[in-house]
Amino acid sequence: MTKSYHVAVVGATGAVGTQMIQLLEKAAIEIKQVTFLSSARSAGKKLTFKGKEITVQEAKPESFDDIDIALFSAGGSVSKQLAPQAAERGAVVIDNTSAFRMAEDVPLVVPEVNEHALKAHHGIIANPNCSTIQMVAALEPIRQAFGLKRVIVSTYQAVSGSGVSAINELKEQSQAILNDEPFSPQVMPVKGDKKHYQIAFNALPQIDVFTENDYTYEEMKMINETKKIMEDDAIQVAATCVRIPVVSGHSESVYIEIDKSGVTADQIRAALKDAPGVVLQDDPANQVYPQASEAAGKKEVFVGRIRADLDQPKGFHLWIVSDNLLKGAAWNSIQIAESLIKQGII
Amino acid sequence: MTKSYHVAVVGATGAVGTQMIQLLEKAAIEIKQVTFLSSARSAGKKLTFKGKEITVQEAKPESFDDIDIALFSAGGSVSKQLAPQAAERGAVVIDNTSAFRMAEDVPLVVPEVNEHALKAHHGIIANPNCSTIQMVAALEPIRQAFGLKRVIVSTYQAVSGSGVSAINELKEQSQAILNDEPFSPQVMPVKGDKKHYQIAFNALPQIDVFTENDYTYEEMKMINETKKIMEDDAIQVAATCVRIPVVSGHSESVYIEIDKSGVTADQIRAALKDAPGVVLQDDPANQVYPQASEAAGKKEVFVGRIRADLDQPKGFHLWIVSDNLLKGAAWNSIQIAESLIKQGII
Repeated sequence: MTKSYHVAVVGATGAVGTQMIQLLEKAAIEIKQVTFLSSARSAGKKLTFKGKEITVQEAKPESFDDIDIALFSAGGSVSKQLAPQAAERGAVVIDNTSAFRMAEDVPLVVPEVNEHALKAHHGIIANPNCSTIQMVAALEPIRQAFGLKRVIVSTYQAVSGSGVSAINELKEQSQAILNDEPFSPQVMPVKGDKKHYQIAFNALPQIDVFTENDYTYEEMKMINETKKIMEDDAIQVAATCVRIPVVSGHSESVYIEIDKSGVTADQIRAALKDAPGVVLQDDPANQVYPQASEAAGKKEVFVGRIRADLDQPKGFHLWIVSDNLLKGAAWNSIQIAESLIKQGII
Repeated sequence: MTKSYHVAVVGATGAVGTQMIQLLEKAAIEIKQVTFLSSARSAGKKLTFKGKEITVQEAKPESFDDIDIALFSAGGSVSKQLAPQAAERGAVVIDNTSAFRMAEDVPLVVPEVNEHALKAHHGIIANPNCSTIQMVAALEPIRQAFGLKRVIVSTYQAVSGSGVSAINELKEQSQAILNDEPFSPQVMPVKGDKKHYQIAFNALPQIDVFTENDYTYEEMKMINETKKIMEDDAIQVAATCVRIPVVSGHSESVYIEIDKSGVTADQIRAALKDAPGVVLQDDPANQVYPQASEAAGKKEVFVGRIRADLDQPKGFHLWIVSDNLLKGAAWNSIQIAESLIKQGII
C-alpha cells in the first residue's frame, strides 16, 4: 500500500504559499489531508484544494500534532518559532526561509544537485534562496563534467520574492509614473529597512539588508549557500544582487571558471542539454535566449547566452533564468517532499 | 577676441539630438550660429534655441559648407555617408554613432580619460558607446592609481538608447500589461533585427545584433572601445549587455582586478572621491547607492556598492550608473567640443 501524508502549508495565503498549494494538487505525493496555516490576521480565509474549500487556521505549535510534512513559507521569524516545534511533534519541516539554511544539522537541498543530503535530516530541511537555487541547478551539470573553480554573478531579480505587497507596489507605482502622478515608495528595496525607493522603471542594487562587509544578506546567501549545496568550500563565489521592475522571473548574468582545460562552449551546452530540470535556450542566430517573461509560470531553469570568455581559456558566460516563486521557492520545496518519499526517508 | 563657432546638430529631432541642443545652450562654446539637420522626413520641424525658433533642414553634403563643429547623432548610415563630406568641407565632426569608432585615424574620446587623443584628429572624432563611456570614466581614476588588469561587466541598460520609438514602446507596453490588454512588440530588443520581444516587466539579454562569436555588437563595443580609450590592449574585458525596463539611466555591475596588491575598498573610494565627472554615492549603512532614476537628467557618473572581492585580493566590485543620453551620448559629445576649444585644436 502507498503511504499517504498529512501536509501542512504555513503561510498559505502568501505569494509562495499560493504556488505551493497549486503544485501540491498535482504533486507525486499521496495526500490524505491538507492543513493551511497562517498568521492570526489571515486565519479564517477560505482557500480551495482539489475543488474542496479549506479554511485557513492560525499557526500554533499544536497545529503540527498530526502533520507528516510541513511546508513553511511565512517569514524567518515564524519559522524560527514554529519549525522546531513542528519537528518535535514529528513533522518533517521543509522551510523556505533563511532561518536554518546555514545550520550544520540542516540539509540545504536542491534535488537536482544534492538530494542525497536529505538522508541526514533531523526534522528540518531548508529550501535555499531563490537566486541560489536556479544558479546551482544550472551550474551543477557543468561542475560534474568539468569542475567549478569560480563564479561571479550579477542578478536581475523580480519583486515577487518580496511578496504580494511588493508586486502591488510595482504595479501601482508603474501606473502612477505612466500617469505622471506622485507616488510614495513603501516596500522596496526591503520592507523592514529604513529607506524605500522607486522600483518601477528603476534598478535597485539592494536585496535584503546590508551586512558588515558591505555585501547584502542576499549576496552572502548566494555565496554561502552555493558552497554548502555543492559541498565544496573551495568554490569562489561573488554576487551582486539587483532588483529590477519584473513581477516574476529572476535572471542572472553568470561568469564561471571551470577546472578543466580545452573545454568549448559547445561542450558546456552539451553538459546542460539533458540535465534534469534544465532547459537549454541558446540560439543567438535566431535570437533565442531565456527571458523572465517566458520563464514565469514554468518549473524549469532556462540557460542561454553561453559563450567562452575571450581572454580566460577556462572562463565562460551564461544567462540563467527561472521563476523565483516556482523553482526558486514553491516547486523546489515540493520536489524536496517528493524526493523524501522517493528515497523512502519518510 | 574669443573665437566663435557655427555648430550643426545632425539628428536634431532625435532623443540624443534634443539633449545636445539643450546642452549647447549652456555649453562653454561661443556660438555664432546653429544649424539643425535631420532626415527629409523630419525637415521643416521647428525647434527652439536660446529662445529663437530654428527650422530643421534636411541634411545634405552642402549643409556643412560653413560649419565649424558638426555633432552627428542620426544613426550609423547617415554618419557613414555625411560625416566624411562634412569633414572634407572643413567641419570637425563629433560622431555619436559606431561608424568610425574603431577606425585607426579617428580618436575615440572620453574627455576625463583621454582628451589628449583629440590632437590627432583628421576631421572626425568618435563619441564612444554609452555603456562604455560611463564605465571608463569611473574606472580611469582607479587605473591611474592602481593599474587595471581585468573587467567583467553586466549591464542594466535603459531603452532610451534605442530612441524615441523604444521609449514609447516601453510606456505603451507597460500600460497594456497593467490593463491586461494584448500588445505586439515592434522595436525591442533591436529595431532592425528579425524578432521583437516584450521589454516591459522583462529583461532582454540582447542589445544590438549578434556577432559571429555569439557576443552582441554592444558587448564587443564595450570590450574593444575600453581598450582603445584606455590605450591598453592588455586589459581583459568581458561584457554581458542586458536591456531592462528603465527609460533613461544605464546601471552596470562591474568586477575589476587591479595590478597593485594590498589595496582596500576605502582606497578605491578615495581614488574616485574627487575624480572629474564622477560622484561617489557609497554609504550602505544609510542605503546610499547610485540609482538610474536619480541619475537621469544629470551629467555625472555615479559610483557605489564598492567592495572587495572575498576571494581575490586584487578584485573589487562596483555599481556604476549614469544617464545614457547625457554622459553616455550628448554630454560627452559637447565635452569633446569644449575640450577641442580649450586645447586650442579648433
